[in-house]
Amino acid sequence: MEKIIKVDGMSCGHCEASVKERLMEIEGIEQVQVNLETKEVKIKGEEISDKEVEEAIDEIGFEVI
Amino acid sequence: MEKIIKVDGMSCGHCEASVKERLMEIEGIEQVQVNLETKEVKIKGEEISDKEVEEAIDEIGFEVI
Repeated sequence: MEKIIKVDGMSCGHCEASVKERLMEIEGIEQVQVNLETKEVKIKGEEISDKEVEEAIDEIGFEVI
Repeated sequence: MEKIIKVDGMSCGHCEASVKERLMEIEGIEQVQVNLETKEVKIKGEEISDKEVEEAIDEIGFEVI
């Protein structure tokens, strides 16, 4: 399954890399793509916990909107 | 939180209505928007179970891709 969420606060390639790196640590997540312009983060994987995703994003200083 | 998933097999307004109606029955889902052209289904709500969403979509003859 693939889903797209919106993440606020990412402004550059470093932010993008942080988000990708942190999300890839979550069980079930196989692929992460970030579009800085649209704020869209596309996540591929199986049985991904939305709560875990939101907490991980918060933890590194960004926000799921 | 808002997320977008892709659903295959919807071809007309009736399909769109079925998907919306079925998803709105799921606990936590507050709003559903369907874009037939891009196959994107935007879901707004809290603590939405992806598994429940996938099963609901399957149940009415469409497929989460």
